[in-house]
Amino acid sequence: MAENKRTSSHDIHNSKTKFYLTRVGIRGVKKPVRVKRPDKAVTLTPTINIYVDLPASLRGSHMSRNAEIANEIVDESVRRPVPGLEDLCKHMVLELLKRHDYASRAEVDMESDFFLERKSYSGKTSLEGYKLRARAKAFREPDSIRIMKTIGVEVRGMTACPCAMETVEEILREKHPGDIPENMPMISHNQRNVTSIDFEVPEDLELEAEDLIEIVEKAQSAPTFEILKRKDEAKLVYDAHMNPKFVEDVVRDILRAILERYPGFPDSAEIIVKSESEESIHKHNAFAERVTTLGELRKIAPGE
Amino acid sequence: MAENKRTSSHDIHNSKTKFYLTRVGIRGVKKPVRVKRPDKAVTLTPTINIYVDLPASLRGSHMSRNAEIANEIVDESVRRPVPGLEDLCKHMVLELLKRHDYASRAEVDMESDFFLERKSYSGKTSLEGYKLRARAKAFREPDSIRIMKTIGVEVRGMTACPCAMETVEEILREKHPGDIPENMPMISHNQRNVTSIDFEVPEDLELEAEDLIEIVEKAQSAPTFEILKRKDEAKLVYDAHMNPKFVEDVVRDILRAILERYPGFPDSAEIIVKSESEESIHKHNAFAERVTTLGELRKIAPGE
Amino acid sequence: MAENKRTSSHDIHNSKTKFYLTRVGIRGVKKPVRVKRPDKAVTLTPTINIYVDLPASLRGSHMSRNAEIANEIVDESVRRPVPGLEDLCKHMVLELLKRHDYASRAEVDMESDFFLERKSYSGKTSLEGYKLRARAKAFREPDSIRIMKTIGVEVRGMTACPCAMETVEEILREKHPGDIPENMPMISHNQRNVTSIDFEVPEDLELEAEDLIEIVEKAQSAPTFEILKRKDEAKLVYDAHMNPKFVEDVVRDILRAILERYPGFPDSAEIIVKSESEESIHKHNAFAERVTTLGELRKIAPGE
Amino acid sequence: MAENKRTSSHDIHNSKTKFYLTRVGIRGVKKPVRVKRPDKAVTLTPTINIYVDLPASLRGSHMSRNAEIANEIVDESVRRPVPGLEDLCKHMVLELLKRHDYASRAEVDMESDFFLERKSYSGKTSLEGYKLRARAKAFREPDSIRIMKTIGVEVRGMTACPCAMETVEEILREKHPGDIPENMPMISHNQRNVTSIDFEVPEDLELEAEDLIEIVEKAQSAPTFEILKRKDEAKLVYDAHMNPKFVEDVVRDILRAILERYPGFPDSAEIIVKSESEESIHKHNAFAERVTTLGELRKIAPGE
Repeated sequence: MAENKRTSSHDIHNSKTKFYLTRVGIRGVKKPVRVKRPDKAVTLTPTINIYVDLPASLRGSHMSRNAEIANEIVDESVRRPVPGLEDLCKHMVLELLKRHDYASRAEVDMESDFFLERKSYSGKTSLEGYKLRARAKAFREPDSIRIMKTIGVEVRGMTACPCAMETVEEILREKHPGDIPENMPMISHNQRNVTSIDFEVPEDLELEAEDLIEIVEKAQSAPTFEILKRKDEAKLVYDAHMNPKFVEDVVRDILRAILERYPGFPDSAEIIVKSESEESIHKHNAFAERVTTLGELRKIAPGE
Repeated sequence: MAENKRTSSHDIHNSKTKFYLTRVGIRGVKKPVRVKRPDKAVTLTPTINIYVDLPASLRGSHMSRNAEIANEIVDESVRRPVPGLEDLCKHMVLELLKRHDYASRAEVDMESDFFLERKSYSGKTSLEGYKLRARAKAFREPDSIRIMKTIGVEVRGMTACPCAMETVEEILREKHPGDIPENMPMISHNQRNVTSIDFEVPEDLELEAEDLIEIVEKAQSAPTFEILKRKDEAKLVYDAHMNPKFVEDVVRDILRAILERYPGFPDSAEIIVKSESEESIHKHNAFAERVTTLGELRKIAPGE
Repeated sequence: MAENKRTSSHDIHNSKTKFYLTRVGIRGVKKPVRVKRPDKAVTLTPTINIYVDLPASLRGSHMSRNAEIANEIVDESVRRPVPGLEDLCKHMVLELLKRHDYASRAEVDMESDFFLERKSYSGKTSLEGYKLRARAKAFREPDSIRIMKTIGVEVRGMTACPCAMETVEEILREKHPGDIPENMPMISHNQRNVTSIDFEVPEDLELEAEDLIEIVEKAQSAPTFEILKRKDEAKLVYDAHMNPKFVEDVVRDILRAILERYPGFPDSAEIIVKSESEESIHKHNAFAERVTTLGELRKIAPGE
Repeated sequence: MAENKRTSSHDIHNSKTKFYLTRVGIRGVKKPVRVKRPDKAVTLTPTINIYVDLPASLRGSHMSRNAEIANEIVDESVRRPVPGLEDLCKHMVLELLKRHDYASRAEVDMESDFFLERKSYSGKTSLEGYKLRARAKAFREPDSIRIMKTIGVEVRGMTACPCAMETVEEILREKHPGDIPENMPMISHNQRNVTSIDFEVPEDLELEAEDLIEIVEKAQSAPTFEILKRKDEAKLVYDAHMNPKFVEDVVRDILRAILERYPGFPDSAEIIVKSESEESIHKHNAFAERVTTLGELRKIAPGE
């Protein structure tokens, strides 16, 4: 049993060893927020984490302020829809530094379901679901506040394995010499693939989640759809097998597309690309990742 | 704020409206247990839920007894490995009825990772992972205690879609008239499939999880393996495409196999079979299920 | 390797043993839907499962129809917000029976985050998050279609343990004889409690999720809030300790409240109440459950 | 639909833009492994992720080698139990660099349930569950291979809030002036707290998971136990309320304990401490974190 004297805030407050804390705050706040889209406003329901740092001299962070900021800014979004989740994050980190005057940095991140209207082959449209991530970090500097924003997307698509396809082809061509047309798609294992991009840039740069989603869908063997009539299904299967991809390929094709699409972005922009295939032939997943900056990528692909 | 008088156990105890409770207990207990296998003892780490019912006349169940029973029986398994998780469940429900003398029924269920050595085509062996489920229910009857046990397995395998395969074949044969050998496997979408059987029988019947796992693996398009060299991978892809399966097929083939394998089991035995394919062409899953009894199944397939 | 002949739909179609399937369909569909609320329309993002049964005579269900129905009905909700998720479920099961003419039953269930404005002690309002569940089942009967609907809610609140409180009180009063005021709240363990009600009734009865949420919040030791200033926090802690509750109490108080609130509902209405406390003193959870019907409950509490 | 020519490994192989990949491998492998403990060997069932990097010149990593290494090393552990999971990780990264000769770095991480016998107040022993994490990273250097290892633990305990306790005390002392004994524990909100340490050090240093677990349990308001008789429960509640802790306190007390316990460890050792309380009065969690090195901590607390 503990000693007979209750420890209090003062005891600990006066203890000699004090430590700075990197992030203190609240996690798992959920709120509906209104976001502007080209044609109308939509409601997203992000899960939100809200932090500031804490100097060694203070025992506790005023966490209820974090919850209040979430509440106010979300309320405000109902009256005036925000341009995007990263915009919400930015407003929140600014407000955090204002209300936690002891803090030198603030951070807010969010993740939400997100929907885009997509057309499958036959022209059927349906709402396809994605994960949208946003984050802002604010740093209190001598005369100003510097803000970095991150936009991230997570996309479910399909990959068909190029390696199994080649081995199968050898076997089948041996079995049926001369009989199989050239350039016919060969069977392989294919599966659900989950690929994400997280892109951190200075706050003033224009970066649209829709563009990142498009980049991922083009890098997978094929995008997937909620609704596919029989013909559509066959075409999607055909296309995926004419475009087999390793997770390594998916990541690299995304890096290449990012290089082409954002020539004006600074070298310091940070990029994390992850691709994970839920292998249909294994119980485990295949995974590839690149953690890098635009500057690093440009060294490799100069002047392209 | 609540009224100024603290409610106590006595207040609620004396309230006029009382209700029987179906299950009261503890959930999410994790313990390592020792289980006998043909050649040696293995350690499983099930997550365990432990319940009894509660008569209307009692306010609270003595939940610490549930935790004590878990502790003792698991300790005992270290000294003397048990034949199986369902055996552990059985010992625990008997003990529950002994120590909760007010209870008329007791229930324990467990779920654990489980490994079997499997050989892939080239003879390579590896440990493949499954989920193993066990449950026992005890009913206090006038002169005895009746026990029902459930054994369940969950198996990750692969399904290749027969429908997409046929549509693709039509398209390809039109494109290459006369050129494609008969009986060649055609591309389709394939994916990770998760199929489970839960089988409830009287306690004295012999029912092995390994047999249920084997039944599932034979019903999927192909089993999956942790290790596949190139040739093995191609063969598995080939086999799966020569054996395309809907989730509906997987469930029915399992029902058929169960009918054949357990002729001596009573009509009252309960069976739940579920098969879910993580569709590679969709963001959602395909699912089929049958909830039934052996008696029901036998009516449909008499004398087979 | 499988035999050299590819199995096709026809082979399996002609096999002699056929089995009825209880539920076949798609799982994990996510869609934003528009729902009417007293003052305005809100967007919910449910995860949706959509099933029909399958007669023994058919090999496969037409699952793309399920996805189409989801798409159409959700689209329609954007133009004309629906009264509630259970209403959406109802429209979908009717449509399922129309388009799957071989089916004798259809089932749709949904789960979504859901927000209500709540006022804490000091009058601060904030949006509090809940889980909302809805389900409809349609049964094709000779001259009509019978529909049952389920509304369910899941609520995070707080429970303080009455048992630990009493033991602590004995110890403290022994230690400080005569010194501790009567009726003072005593320390105990308290924790996050997650309680759910699922209530199945004929489709024409009025049943509001908000009412069920209110019933749960009154049955817990105290509701929880996203924002609490220091005074509010102290009051909530005080109130919870003046109103200590076992999970058993939470379930029974809910049963009692349901009996009182829905006198006109039929005896056949089905009720499942579950309460789980994430015990602060244990690594496992405490749990209580009642599975019953209104009729059963009324037998116990006649004329109350 | 994709163009009519199937892309092959060669096409992509020859494309001009190539990119290095940071990590390529397999995720979610589960295996039972045998680990030596002071008195006997125990079986753990970690989930394992296994990666190497991939130079720009190669299209794909040979992922089946990763699975083979997992298989062999785990098999070997059955014959000769390993000293710890971090030891397994180390053997695996060395083997990865051997078999992937193109790789310049390798990484393996694992997470597993882990059990320690603990004694509660009354001397009752029970197995308490923890999460154990291990990671090794190998870097191919000109003449050698450098290895860093990480050991991590995650511990469920209890925190009681010091802030609510003080506000409550003020209110109660106003209500009952002079009546409440000094130094009596006051009611507060308390809850399940999950705290983790991840400690990265050079491979040759002795670092025991048990010590880290002990450090966490001492830093929380109280440890938790699977089995508590009534008196034990009251004592634990009493102790936790005599030792109230913010998540900030938990993290700092751990940092302090680490500084004291590992004086011989190098300044470069990396430490991440996280503490998350599943607030009983909120629907969200409170969180504190420090990401640092031993060197950083020593600057703050010189000569202590």
